[in-house]
Amino acid sequence: MNSFQFVNPTHIVFGEGTANQVGQLTAKHGKTVLLVYGSGSVKKTGLYDKTVSLLQDAGVTVHELPNIEPNPRLSTVNKGIAICREQSVDFILAVGGGSVIDAAKAIAAGVPYDGDVWDFFTGKAVIEKALPIGTILTLAATGSEMNGSSVVTNWEENLKRAFGSSHTYPKFSILDPTLTYTVPRNHTVNGAVDIMSHVFEQYFSLTENTPLQERFCESILQTVIENVELALENPEHAAARANLMWSGTMALNGGMISVGMANDWASHGIEHEVSAIYDIPHGAGLAVIFPNWMKYVHEERIDRFVQYATRVWGVNPAGKSDQEIALEGIQATRDFFTRIGAESRLADFEIGSEKLDRMAEEAVRYGAIGSFKRLEKQDVKAILELSL
Amino acid sequence: MNSFQFVNPTHIVFGEGTANQVGQLTAKHGKTVLLVYGSGSVKKTGLYDKTVSLLQDAGVTVHELPNIEPNPRLSTVNKGIAICREQSVDFILAVGGGSVIDAAKAIAAGVPYDGDVWDFFTGKAVIEKALPIGTILTLAATGSEMNGSSVVTNWEENLKRAFGSSHTYPKFSILDPTLTYTVPRNHTVNGAVDIMSHVFEQYFSLTENTPLQERFCESILQTVIENVELALENPEHAAARANLMWSGTMALNGGMISVGMANDWASHGIEHEVSAIYDIPHGAGLAVIFPNWMKYVHEERIDRFVQYATRVWGVNPAGKSDQEIALEGIQATRDFFTRIGAESRLADFEIGSEKLDRMAEEAVRYGAIGSFKRLEKQDVKAILELSL
Repeated sequence: MNSFQFVNPTHIVFGEGTANQVGQLTAKHGKTVLLVYGSGSVKKTGLYDKTVSLLQDAGVTVHELPNIEPNPRLSTVNKGIAICREQSVDFILAVGGGSVIDAAKAIAAGVPYDGDVWDFFTGKAVIEKALPIGTILTLAATGSEMNGSSVVTNWEENLKRAFGSSHTYPKFSILDPTLTYTVPRNHTVNGAVDIMSHVFEQYFSLTENTPLQERFCESILQTVIENVELALENPEHAAARANLMWSGTMALNGGMISVGMANDWASHGIEHEVSAIYDIPHGAGLAVIFPNWMKYVHEERIDRFVQYATRVWGVNPAGKSDQEIALEGIQATRDFFTRIGAESRLADFEIGSEKLDRMAEEAVRYGAIGSFKRLEKQDVKAILELSL
Repeated sequence: MNSFQFVNPTHIVFGEGTANQVGQLTAKHGKTVLLVYGSGSVKKTGLYDKTVSLLQDAGVTVHELPNIEPNPRLSTVNKGIAICREQSVDFILAVGGGSVIDAAKAIAAGVPYDGDVWDFFTGKAVIEKALPIGTILTLAATGSEMNGSSVVTNWEENLKRAFGSSHTYPKFSILDPTLTYTVPRNHTVNGAVDIMSHVFEQYFSLTENTPLQERFCESILQTVIENVELALENPEHAAARANLMWSGTMALNGGMISVGMANDWASHGIEHEVSAIYDIPHGAGLAVIFPNWMKYVHEERIDRFVQYATRVWGVNPAGKSDQEIALEGIQATRDFFTRIGAESRLADFEIGSEKLDRMAEEAVRYGAIGSFKRLEKQDVKAILELSL
């Protein structure tokens, strides 16, 4: 285990009906709110009307930024920053999934910054302050509800980049699993893949002597595996929806499950290059990339893949080589993703080999990526080719 | 899973050498510090001298309260409160294990309170503010380094009571596992029992549909089981000490591993009555009480005990009844405690049956205790009798 620091100040309010507390929770932090949301599903479900009404009852003035894209765009973030400045907004409320929350964080960081908010994504500047934000989560996936990270796409330049800051942890996040009852099947699938992928990025690590962290990771993987099909069969399965939601939050709550461990994040980096060009859903891209990353890198540390196969997938090791056990675990991952309905090939999105070289080039623009196995351009390209 | 709220603002600084950061971390919060510590082992190891020197280098004025008892006493807490008021102390630094940290919390809550600090332990008053505190942890056991709870003994009245408050979470806790290399064998054992007992209080719950929380609990139990003997064999086993320390913190970091679950805490209540009279170490008392509590209550929810036996102890369920599997898991617990050197009977502390009735009476003074099985006076007495 390496040395580490950990702190996570986000206040979680979890359970059915907790969205009713949004007025009082928001009023603690701000008087003029920018309400950020997505494509309008929150309007269909009535959550939008309820939220606006509760905010107004709490004496809060509401401005709004609708239509956050599934891969939130820099142009939209800049629109939000402009509204906040014009209207003297002092709090941002994100109602939605990860993309909405990520956009809200970027706006929050951008408002008090004199330069271009994109500077925070390119590393040109570091966030020193941000408006406070809160969230009502409507999708089990991202973990963004309990961390300081944000991913935004600069569509003009086909660049998808991330920042992480201690200033952009939500002050509160309302997690009402019943709000996910109406999540469409494919979003439920992509969300589950996203949660598992967040764990993979932390679990497949070269750091030694981290048994508790590894078991926390395995706990989340097993819980997602056991619950996602229940939620797909019955979208109003209360326990499954609650377990998926809490798994998503725990999977990326500031890295608690992997404190003191080197993280990898190469697969996310590769996926970001795909969706920066083709605008496919993040979870869908990960379902394609991750099993191929596993195949490509597993020999770096076969014992972790053996542990993964046996503990998470119950692979029986009797009479098998480590290599066989590891590959069985990777195949179980692929089969599971396929069984729940996730895509397995880039071709499923009509993505061919044309831009593979460019994506590989972009993925390593600052040097090799990943820590489990350092990936150079040719490695990234090989993983993308496996994914065709 | 029940509805819940969760927030834990404590900043953890973990790793070898992190105690060197105490000056700068403290100076962020205060200028005049009360340094609280125990029997003097921190003087022997040099940690005391180093801490004082680092604090002074950071421009902090240091007052001190030594000799905190293993079961910290109200009279000592009151002594600390008086020093803080006289010297205008604005920050409390606890250097030690759970008892030292608990005393620091009680002092922190007592200083700005006009009444008797004991009011917070009897429920007569609620903490509305407290001085900020920080900790340097020297024992893997309590979890007090990352929660708002405190347990103090009113020795004059033989009462041991607890409070919990959002105002008494440490601002920071320094967790340097190498500081536990010098922990005596029996304290290492009692600490491990304490950690496991904290998990038991949360894990044995009647709440349904909490698979992630249950696995988090099992993760900690397995990690402690795998590491405590390594630390006993080699007190300077870096990985074992680190894993035990982080397990202790995670086991009781504001209830994160059991969010949305009813907790029990009856065994702690019973043990508190024993140590309030006989002043035995908390962990040692728990090692005696807990297996007997398990025997007494396991039929309330046999499936949880079957899960415990199979997942944590690897009990092979083939051809056995649930009852047999459950009892095998309970016996494995008892055997493990014995194997690492924990006491198994009250008689090992020369405690006889004389005061059992009084202890049972006191344990239920506010009504039945526990939630897994509600224990009336006769139940508590029966568990104590099993423990003789």
